[in-house]
Order: sequence, then structure tokens, then C-alpha cells
Amino acid sequence: MKKAVVLLSGGLDSATVLAIARDQSFQCYALSVDYGQRHRSELEAAQKVACALGAYQHQMIKLDLIAFGGSALTDQAIAVPTAGEKTQIPVTYVPARNTIMLSLALAWAETLQSQDIFVGVNAVDYSGYPDCRPEYIQAFEQMASLATKAGIEGKKLTIHAPLMHLSKKEIIQTGIALGVDYSLTVSCYQADETGRACGVCDSCRIRKAGFAAAGVTDPACYRS
Amino acid sequence: MKKAVVLLSGGLDSATVLAIARDQSFQCYALSVDYGQRHRSELEAAQKVACALGAYQHQMIKLDLIAFGGSALTDQAIAVPTAGEKTQIPVTYVPARNTIMLSLALAWAETLQSQDIFVGVNAVDYSGYPDCRPEYIQAFEQMASLATKAGIEGKKLTIHAPLMHLSKKEIIQTGIALGVDYSLTVSCYQADETGRACGVCDSCRIRKAGFAAAGVTDPACYRS
Repeated sequence: MKKAVVLLSGGLDSATVLAIARDQSFQCYALSVDYGQRHRSELEAAQKVACALGAYQHQMIKLDLIAFGGSALTDQAIAVPTAGEKTQIPVTYVPARNTIMLSLALAWAETLQSQDIFVGVNAVDYSGYPDCRPEYIQAFEQMASLATKAGIEGKKLTIHAPLMHLSKKEIIQTGIALGVDYSLTVSCYQADETGRACGVCDSCRIRKAGFAAAGVTDPACYRS
Repeated sequence: MKKAVVLLSGGLDSATVLAIARDQSFQCYALSVDYGQRHRSELEAAQKVACALGAYQHQMIKLDLIAFGGSALTDQAIAVPTAGEKTQIPVTYVPARNTIMLSLALAWAETLQSQDIFVGVNAVDYSGYPDCRPEYIQAFEQMASLATKAGIEGKKLTIHAPLMHLSKKEIIQTGIALGVDYSLTVSCYQADETGRACGVCDSCRIRKAGFAAAGVTDPACYRS
């Protein structure tokens, strides 16, 4: 059975990615990073999702990105936008987050002798995030192949980004077909300790619209 | 004054790199990563070196790479080689270490609006490490330029690796010319709590040979 490292945040997208990796017959090693995000109930959601979708192992890595600041998701002084204000790059963008996450996944993949990493980046809803673009994923793959023992031995590392070009509606439909229980996932940028979502942040709004478009009831618990 | 993030381990090479960055008139933000390395006195050395070489700020980030295992530098079950046994890739290689370090430096650089990262990788002494080769550094630079806000805005990120093609002798000569106090640095893979070096591991042997070749007395304190 081929091993894969799957980045798992506890949100809707990465839960779907885990289901896709499992459906492709990978033995899944789920990796969550506790980087000091505001929405800490995401991490508890990640545990439940890993268990529910049969991850072979789930590893939680602590990393203090708060030290660097610069994002509304880690910096308490920056407000999470709620009214859908459009800036070119959202303040919820965490500097180099996907690069750091993928690097950690790469380290684990190397020790597991796995050549497959799954990540839930999406170029449709997060068009403002530089590290959610296909050309970025390709460049990371190329770098990773040069960075590792496996690469030197000629084994190609693949970064699977199966959601890249899907709409939220399509992501939800894919997940439901694969048996994902979306009631376990937390998408909200400012969910409370029990995982209840605010219903008004960008992430909640995108999620709600996705479920509506898919014609499926959103099982998330909203405060408002 | 241009800002630069400088990866600083507390060893000889990265101390030299910090001196080089300062000499190039960068305002230096030194970054050390506490990744659970055996040689923990390196981290104390990093603090002293940052201070002695006038780093504008020094940040220490904790990251538990022990969770992944796979290296003699983080895994207590793997012995540090002392007799200079040659394998293609040394067991002291930490999976994806430079990729993780550079990713963290990238995150900090982005919040600082800096386009310059300095790292002490060297292709001469560490030819067995995949992530110490020029083609790897180039690939990281390319990926990083796509990963960030600055990249999208057309600002090029530069990974400076000024030691890449220098011998240990040349590195030491460069550092001495720039006023590096090498007595503050710890190179040993298994230094004790006070920073005293074993004198027999690969890193100690390379260091000793470098000082001998440079015709300079090694100010390190050796147990044996």
C-alpha cells in the first residue's frame, strides 16, 4: 500500500482531500499544524476527521507562527474581515503558510519513504493567495525533488492538489460522494471553543454559498 | 537600510554568514530554529553570536522535528558517526531541514518586507546533503518568488548562500577578516551542556581540519 502525507486542517477542503487520497488507495498519514491560529477548534475538528476517514496515523505539530505576525489569523491586533471587503490579498493570508506546511509534510514524507503529499489548495475561492496557484505547487514540487534523498535517487515527489480547479460546490459534491461527514469540519476563521461558526467571515460565507449551490444542507453549527 | 533574514544555527558557518550580511550593510534579523537537535548548546551559541555580531533582532522558533524522526541529530536511537564512516547521505542529515528553515525565514522575510535571506549552506563539506546544492537553492528561490505577496508584485526574493563554494579554510579566513569570534560558536553534533565539543564527530573533524588549514588556532573547547 502506498503511503501519502495528507495536510489536514480540520476544514472542509482538507477533509475532502483526505477522502480523495483514501479513495485512491493511499495509506494516509494526516498532518495538522498548530501554528497559533485563532480558529483553534479547527485542530479538534482535524482529529475527528482523521479518525472518521480512517487515517493510518495523525500527527499534530506545534509551530509558533505568531512570532512573525502579519496575518489576521494569527495576529490578535488585525481584525478578521466579515463584510467581504476585497483587497488584492486577504489579511487572512498567513505569510508563507503553505510553504511551511508543505515543507513539514515533505520532512515526514521523507522519513516515511513516501513520494506523495496531498494538500487542499484551491485556486478558485482563494485567488488572492499567492501560494494557492498551480504554478506555485509546481515550483514547490520541483524544489522538493531536489531537496530530498529520494529526489537524488531519482524518485519523483508528487504534490497532489486535487481541489485546485474545483468550485466549492464541486468540492462538497465530491466529498459527499466519498462519505465525508462535513458536520465534523470547521471552516470559520473565528469559531468559538465548541466549534460554532460565526457565519459572517469570508470562510463561512464561501462555505454557506457552496452548500447552497450543491443543494445540500450545511451541517455546521452557526452562532448567528 | 535593507533588511535581511539570516538563518543562524550557532555554528561556525552561519556565524560567518551573519558577518557577511552585516558587511554588505544589511540590517540583520537572525532566525534560529529549536528543532529538538541533540546539540542544544548550539542555540545558546546562536544567541551569543547574534549579539556579538550586532543582529538587529534575534528570533528563536520552536518546532518539534523529533516527531518525524529519521536523523541522528534528532533521534536518540541513531548513533552520531564518529569514525568518518562514509555513506552516500550522512545519518546526520535531517529530512527537509533546510527547506523547513528557509520556509520559516521566508515567512519572517515576508512580514518584514525583506527580499533577502542568508543561509550558510555549503556544497564542499556537505556534498552528501541534497539540500546543500546550488540547484536546490535556485529551485527554492524560484518557488519562494511564486509563494509570496512580494513575488506577485514582481519583487524578486534572493537566497544568499555566500559559503556555497568555499572550503572550510576559506570560510574561517573570511570570518576572521570580518571579526567573527569563533570561540562563541559550537559546531559539534554532540556538544555537552556547556558547549564543549566531542572532537571526534564529523562536524568536529571538519572544523578542526579547517582551522589547521587556515593556520589559525581553533578556539573551541574540546572534551577530548
